[in-house]
Amino acid sequence: MSKGEQTRKRILERAAQLLNQRGFLSSSVSEIMEATGMQKGGIYNHFKSKEDLAVQAFDYAVERIAEKYRAALEGKEHAVDRLVAVITLFEVYEGDAPFAGGCPLMNCAIESDDTSPVLRARARQAMDQWRDMFVRIIAKGISRGEIRPHVHPDTEATLFITSLEGAVMMSNLYKDPVHLRRVIARLVDYVNGELKT
Amino acid sequence: MSKGEQTRKRILERAAQLLNQRGFLSSSVSEIMEATGMQKGGIYNHFKSKEDLAVQAFDYAVERIAEKYRAALEGKEHAVDRLVAVITLFEVYEGDAPFAGGCPLMNCAIESDDTSPVLRARARQAMDQWRDMFVRIIAKGISRGEIRPHVHPDTEATLFITSLEGAVMMSNLYKDPVHLRRVIARLVDYVNGELKT
Repeated sequence: MSKGEQTRKRILERAAQLLNQRGFLSSSVSEIMEATGMQKGGIYNHFKSKEDLAVQAFDYAVERIAEKYRAALEGKEHAVDRLVAVITLFEVYEGDAPFAGGCPLMNCAIESDDTSPVLRARARQAMDQWRDMFVRIIAKGISRGEIRPHVHPDTEATLFITSLEGAVMMSNLYKDPVHLRRVIARLVDYVNGELKT
Repeated sequence: MSKGEQTRKRILERAAQLLNQRGFLSSSVSEIMEATGMQKGGIYNHFKSKEDLAVQAFDYAVERIAEKYRAALEGKEHAVDRLVAVITLFEVYEGDAPFAGGCPLMNCAIESDDTSPVLRARARQAMDQWRDMFVRIIAKGISRGEIRPHVHPDTEATLFITSLEGAVMMSNLYKDPVHLRRVIARLVDYVNGELKT
């Protein structure tokens, strides 16, 4: 990695942390300068604009989370084990989250849905990938006889994601993990009781 | 209502619409001026600061939504009817929402949880009231034999709210009501199949 690439990565790392807490678009340049320890010119050497930095910091955050998913799924074959692994991964939001400030995808979705088409497109893309992960696990589980045949993968993806995202929001608002724990416990029961063959 | 009160109410009405879409804290003063048709001095005659306006616009939005809840619950006695009424009320977010831009409570929660203690306190207060509404409906339903006795009202309140808020976020992100419809349909089935005696 060249020195320029190292600098760019360091900016992204620190900006992702800051922007996830204080807003991908609404964080000020001076806040970004403080968090990265860089001058304005140094930052704009690597990013075309504040929106460009926001988009790349978002992508960076999503990629870090995707790595966590890959690690959680590693070695798990049965659809039920895979679903439970991705649901219980949300326990990280209790304190050991890859990013402070809640789920970058939800934060970005809420902030951008009526303000930034570029950032919204990125949030949709990340959401598509996440939904697709649930859909593929469930569809494969049905074809292997591990998940009940009447289950509709797209609908289940919506139900899992909405509950988990709502739970991160609520636990963050109260700074209390109880909401996240309730939702995770219920979803795990649901997978074992309603989806499993 | 005095002329000053009328002006204050008109500012709140328009500011609530704007701030719910573009951010309670991150909307600029010039955007607020444009939305309200007021000069800066005129706005600050009625509100101490931008944060004060944000807090009062949030309270205004919450009160408008509370009115919708009261109307939906009017004349309904059975706990199951009352739960279904407050769940299906979320269909308004398909297009006839009291406020464009999604649920003010979630938007405010996401924006303020790591930035503004004042606004976060308001969001918590509104969330407390909303959770309390679910808890009271369920607890009363248990005592009247309408809801199964083993049901835990606080846990159910968390499960309903997290799903509904996640659904509003997701339908807003995609500008597609399908996610909201899936969650509403599933929650109504759940109330009738799992909670009802």
